[in-house]
Amino acid sequence: MFEIVRRDGLARIGRFETRSGILETPALLPVVNPKILTITPAELYEEFGFKALITNSYIIKNSDDIRERALNEGLHSLLGFPGIVMTDSGTFQSHMYGEVEVSNEEIIEFQKNIGSDIGTVLDIFTEPFWSEEETSASIDVTLKRTRDAVSMKGDMMIAGVVQGSVYPDLRRMCSERMKEMDVDVHPIGGVVPLMEQYRYSELVDVIINSKMGLSPDRPVHLFGAGHPMILSLAVLLGCDMFDSASYAKFARDDRMMFIDGTYRIEDMLSLDCKCPACKDHTLETLRALPEKERIRTVARHNLYEITKELALVKRYILEGRLWELVEQRCRSHPALLDALRRLNVYRDFLETYEPISRDGAMFYTGPETRNRPAFRRYEKRIEERYVPVTDKAALFEDREGKPYGRSYCEDFARVRSSGYVPIVLSPFGPVPAELDEIYPIAQSLFPSVADKETEEYSENSVMEFVSRSGFSEVADMDDVPHGNGGYDHLPEKAKAVARYQFGKEAADALICGNVKIVTSKNTGKIRNVISDDEHVLSMRAGDGLFTLRPEGALRIVEKVPGPHMRVVVSDDAVPFVSEGRNVFCAFVKECDPEIRTMDEVLVVDGNGKLLAVGRAMLIRDEMLSFRKGVAVKVRDGVGKS
Amino acid sequence: MFEIVRRDGLARIGRFETRSGILETPALLPVVNPKILTITPAELYEEFGFKALITNSYIIKNSDDIRERALNEGLHSLLGFPGIVMTDSGTFQSHMYGEVEVSNEEIIEFQKNIGSDIGTVLDIFTEPFWSEEETSASIDVTLKRTRDAVSMKGDMMIAGVVQGSVYPDLRRMCSERMKEMDVDVHPIGGVVPLMEQYRYSELVDVIINSKMGLSPDRPVHLFGAGHPMILSLAVLLGCDMFDSASYAKFARDDRMMFIDGTYRIEDMLSLDCKCPACKDHTLETLRALPEKERIRTVARHNLYEITKELALVKRYILEGRLWELVEQRCRSHPALLDALRRLNVYRDFLETYEPISRDGAMFYTGPETRNRPAFRRYEKRIEERYVPVTDKAALFEDREGKPYGRSYCEDFARVRSSGYVPIVLSPFGPVPAELDEIYPIAQSLFPSVADKETEEYSENSVMEFVSRSGFSEVADMDDVPHGNGGYDHLPEKAKAVARYQFGKEAADALICGNVKIVTSKNTGKIRNVISDDEHVLSMRAGDGLFTLRPEGALRIVEKVPGPHMRVVVSDDAVPFVSEGRNVFCAFVKECDPEIRTMDEVLVVDGNGKLLAVGRAMLIRDEMLSFRKGVAVKVRDGVGKS
Repeated sequence: MFEIVRRDGLARIGRFETRSGILETPALLPVVNPKILTITPAELYEEFGFKALITNSYIIKNSDDIRERALNEGLHSLLGFPGIVMTDSGTFQSHMYGEVEVSNEEIIEFQKNIGSDIGTVLDIFTEPFWSEEETSASIDVTLKRTRDAVSMKGDMMIAGVVQGSVYPDLRRMCSERMKEMDVDVHPIGGVVPLMEQYRYSELVDVIINSKMGLSPDRPVHLFGAGHPMILSLAVLLGCDMFDSASYAKFARDDRMMFIDGTYRIEDMLSLDCKCPACKDHTLETLRALPEKERIRTVARHNLYEITKELALVKRYILEGRLWELVEQRCRSHPALLDALRRLNVYRDFLETYEPISRDGAMFYTGPETRNRPAFRRYEKRIEERYVPVTDKAALFEDREGKPYGRSYCEDFARVRSSGYVPIVLSPFGPVPAELDEIYPIAQSLFPSVADKETEEYSENSVMEFVSRSGFSEVADMDDVPHGNGGYDHLPEKAKAVARYQFGKEAADALICGNVKIVTSKNTGKIRNVISDDEHVLSMRAGDGLFTLRPEGALRIVEKVPGPHMRVVVSDDAVPFVSEGRNVFCAFVKECDPEIRTMDEVLVVDGNGKLLAVGRAMLIRDEMLSFRKGVAVKVRDGVGKS
Repeated sequence: MFEIVRRDGLARIGRFETRSGILETPALLPVVNPKILTITPAELYEEFGFKALITNSYIIKNSDDIRERALNEGLHSLLGFPGIVMTDSGTFQSHMYGEVEVSNEEIIEFQKNIGSDIGTVLDIFTEPFWSEEETSASIDVTLKRTRDAVSMKGDMMIAGVVQGSVYPDLRRMCSERMKEMDVDVHPIGGVVPLMEQYRYSELVDVIINSKMGLSPDRPVHLFGAGHPMILSLAVLLGCDMFDSASYAKFARDDRMMFIDGTYRIEDMLSLDCKCPACKDHTLETLRALPEKERIRTVARHNLYEITKELALVKRYILEGRLWELVEQRCRSHPALLDALRRLNVYRDFLETYEPISRDGAMFYTGPETRNRPAFRRYEKRIEERYVPVTDKAALFEDREGKPYGRSYCEDFARVRSSGYVPIVLSPFGPVPAELDEIYPIAQSLFPSVADKETEEYSENSVMEFVSRSGFSEVADMDDVPHGNGGYDHLPEKAKAVARYQFGKEAADALICGNVKIVTSKNTGKIRNVISDDEHVLSMRAGDGLFTLRPEGALRIVEKVPGPHMRVVVSDDAVPFVSEGRNVFCAFVKECDPEIRTMDEVLVVDGNGKLLAVGRAMLIRDEMLSFRKGVAVKVRDGVGKS
C-alpha cells in the first residue's frame, strides 16, 4: 500500500495506494466541514491539486440534513470529490466539548457505510496536562477500540491514532502495540494543544517516540498540523500526512497564514503576496471585499501558502537538503529553535536513517547543525573504526578550501615525511588526513568564523581522540620539521576509508597482501584498489567513498561472518538477483541492522552465498516491513553459476 | 529630494524625488540592455511596478543604430519607459574588458543629452585584488571626475560612486570626500566580484564603512546587487537602491533565481513556484518552451522573485523586525552567516541607529542575535547608568514568562525584604529587577535551552557587573531568607528606568523630593511618577519606558546642561513648535548626538528655552542633513507664553 519513492533521512516522498487513488506524500489533507464549504471539494481537487481531504463523520452523523444523503449517495458524491476521503471520528469534538454521544463501533460502522476511504478510530484524546496514570489508562481504551475497529474494517482503511500525552515512553508503548494491529495509517493525536502553546520541543519528543515504535511501512499523520511553519520539521521527523482546518478557520477570523506566522488582516502593514489568490489585491482592496468573498480569498491564500511550503519541502527532499530548510525555518520562532535543539537527544536514532552520503554539500547554519546525524555518524566511526598510521600526530587548524589535502598539500607532506599523521581540528571533530575526502568532511561549507560551541567541541574531541587512539607524540603542525622517512600515504588512505565505510575486519580482508593503488592522472586521487591482483574497490570522486567490486565482496563473504553488510533474500529471488536485477522488499528475509541507506551491501542467499553487490536504498526495518519498493539497487550480479 | 518615511535602524523606507517621478526605496532597478529587451521597459513599469530602471549610456553611445534615436527622442521615448531612467557610464565595461574609449566629460555630457534622470560618473572600478596604493590613487581620479561631473550636471542628477576595493579606511575616506560634493545618489561600486566570490563578510565591511562616511540624506545604491538572497542584509545596513542585470542574464543561461540560491533548469528536480510567470508550468512544460519564450518566462520569474523579497523586506521594516528576517536569510549559505557574524565589529555604529524601543517582541535566532545593537545599547547603559539600590545582590536564573517580576514575584519580594537587589542572569547580561519591564528585556523571546556562547556571556557579564557596581555581598536566590526590612521597590524602579533612559543627572532632577508612584489598579505596574507634586513622568505599558511630561522636561532644562536631550530649532519654527506642531528637519539647528530614534527629547530655541516635548524620529546627523521629513514628533508644546 505504501512505498518510499525518495527519501532524506526519516523524511520521505511516498506513494500511498488507496481504493480512491494514489496519494503522494508528504501530503496535506484540507479539512472540509461538510456544512460550511468555504472552498468546495471540487476546487480543492482541481485548482489546488489536493488528492485527499478529511471530513468529520461525527458531524455528518449528527446532521439530519446530510446524514441520509451521505448514507445513500456516499461521501464522495455528497462532497463532490473524486479523490481520497478520510474521516475523523469525533475524538477532537470530545477534546473540545468534553464528550461525544457515539460509540466506537457505531462511528466505525457509520464511516464504512458512508464510504470513507480511511476511517478513524474513536480514540481518547490525551491532554498534555494529564497524569501518566490517566494517560496510560486511556491508551488501553484507545488500543482496545483500535483492535475492535480493525476487526470491523472490511475494505475501509483504518487510521489508528497514537496517543500518550507528553510521555515519551507511553507514546512509544502505544506505537509498539499499534504496530501489531492491521492498521493502515497512524495519526499522531493529542498534539494540537502542544502546537497552540508553542511547545514544539515536546512535539519533537512525541513525534520521534511515536516513530520509534511504529512500523516504517505505514504513513504517519500528524493530526491537526497545518501551519506551514511546522511542516518541514515534521516531515524531517518522518511525518507523511497532515491536515489543516486552519486554512478556513483562520480565514473566517480574517487571519492569513504565512511561513513566518499568522497575521490578522487588520494588523497587517502591507500585503506582499503574489499567490493566485492575492496577486490582484492590495491590503486595501482585500480589506474592502464583502465578507464572504474575503473569507474565500484568505482561505485560498492560506491553502496556497501551505501547498507552496509542501512543494518546497519535497524539493529539499529530492535535493537531500531538508535539514538545511528545517534549520532555516526553525529561526522564525525561538520555540522552534528549541525544537531544533531538542533533536540533540535523538542523534543515535536519527543516525540510523542517515544516508552514507548525499549529492550536495552540507551547509552549516549554526551550532544546531552539529545535531545532524551525519556528525554523529562521523563521531562514532572515528572512535570505533579508525586505526592510526603511526603514533605521532601533527595538529592542523580547520581551513577553507577542501579537501584539506589540497589546501594543506605541502604541510601534510612535510609532517608525513617525519612520520606524523596530520589531524585537522574540524567542526566535525578530528579529521585524520586519510579521511579528508570522504562525505561529509570534504563536501561541507562552514563559516570562516566558528561559534564557541563548535570551536570547543572541535578542540575537546581532538584531545580525546588523540589520547584514545594511543598517539604518544602530539605536535603543532608548524613544529614538525621535514624528515626523510615517513610512510606511503595512499595505501593508508585506502585502508582508512575502507575501515570507516566497511569496518576494520572487512577492510583488512579487502586491502591486504600486495596492494596497488591506481590514481587519477588528472587529480592524483585514488581511483582503484588492487589487492593481490584483484580489483577490490573503486573510489567515487563525488563522496570519496568506495564502490565495492565483486572480487572485494567475495572476500568479505569469505572472511567476515554475517550478518555484516548482508542482505539475505528468499530463494525465489535468487535467479533474478544473481543476474543483476534489483532486490525488492518483498524478497528480503534478513538484513544487517548496521546497514545504512546508500551503503554498499552484499546480497546473499539463505546459505550465505554471494548473489550480488549493490547499494542499500532502505534500512533493515524498512526492508523487512515494506511490501513494495526497491531494497537494494544491484550493480553486479555475481551468483550466476 | 530624499526623505525617510519609515525606518528600522539603518534600514529605511524612503521617498526619492526625481524629475521623472518619485521612487519609493528600497528599490531595485532592473538593468535594461537597450539592444536586447528580454522584458520590455513598458512591461517592467506596468506589470512589475518598477518605477525606475537603469540602462547603459556607454552601450547606447557606441551603437550606431540607437545613438541617434536616443539623442533625438531622448531615453524615455527610446525605451518606452514613463518612469525614472538612470544610466551607467561604462565603468563596469572597463572592469570587464580592461578599458573604455570615452572620457568622463564625454559620457556625462552624453547622459545629459539623452535625457538620463540620474547620470553616473565614469569612476574607476577598484578590484578586490588591488593594493592599497593602487586603490588610493584610483580613488583620487574617481573623486576628480566626480567633481567635474557635478560641475557639469545641469538638471541631471549625479550618481557619485564610492570606491575603495576591500579597504575599509579607503571606502570611508572616499565617502567622506564625496559627501562634500553636490552628488545626488551614492552607488557603492566595485562589489560585484565580492558577491560573485561569496565574500559577503568583506561586503559588510565595504557597505558599513561607506555608510559611515556618507551623508544620510542621499540614497545609497549597491551597484550590481540583485540577488534576492543578499537584499535583506544590504537593506539592513542602509542600502536604498539595487540593480539587477542577472534577472535577464541568468534567464539567458536557463537559471532561475530563488531566495535560497540560483538553479539551472536542467539540474532542477521540481518546480515549486506559484509566481505569475511559473504558476501554469511544471518543470517539464517550462523546459519544453521554445528558447525565446523560456528565457522570457525565466526572466519574469526572476523579477517576481526579487520583487517578492523586496516587498517582504519592506514589510519587515514596517514591523520593525528586519533583523529577524536577515538572521533567517543568512542561514542559506555559510558565507552569509559569516557576514552576519561580522556585524559584531560594528555594534557601536549600529547602536547609533537603533531605536529606543520597537513595537514587537524581539526573537532570538542564535548566538548572532547578540550582535544586534539593542544588546549593545543595554550593555553600555547598564554599565554607565545603573546605580545599585543596596550593596547586596541576589542572583536569579533566566526564566520564561516575562517580565521577571511576574514569574519571580514572591522570590523578588523575599530577597528584597532582606535588603538584596534581585539580579537575573539573562541573555542580555545582568538584569536588575528594577529594569525587568523595559524594552527589550521584557519584550523578547529566547529558546529555553541557551547556547554556550550566550550562557557564558550571561554569566561573565553578571560577574563583571556585580564587581563593578560595588556589591559587597552576592548570594544565590535560594540562599536569601525572608527578612523584615528591605526597601520600597517602586520608587527605585522608577529611578532606575529614568536613569537608564535619560541618564543619571536627568533622573535625579526628575525624581527627587517627595516622590509618589501611581500604579495601575489592574496590573500593579507604575503609571505615573509624581515628584514634589509635579507629574513628571508617565510609564508606557508597551515598552516599560517613560514618557516625559512637560513638568519633567522643564526640570531637565533647568538642572541638566545642554546639549543633553536637546533638539535646537531655528527662530522661525519657534511659534509653531510651541503650539505643538512637529519639528521638521529643515528647522533643526543642533541636536544632542546621544539622542536615538524614539527617544524623548526637549525641543528648545537658540537660547535653550523649552518649546516642546516629543519623540525623536531621526538622529542628529539625519536631522541636520535632511531637508524634508519630521525630526521630532511633538507631544506637548510648552513654549507658548
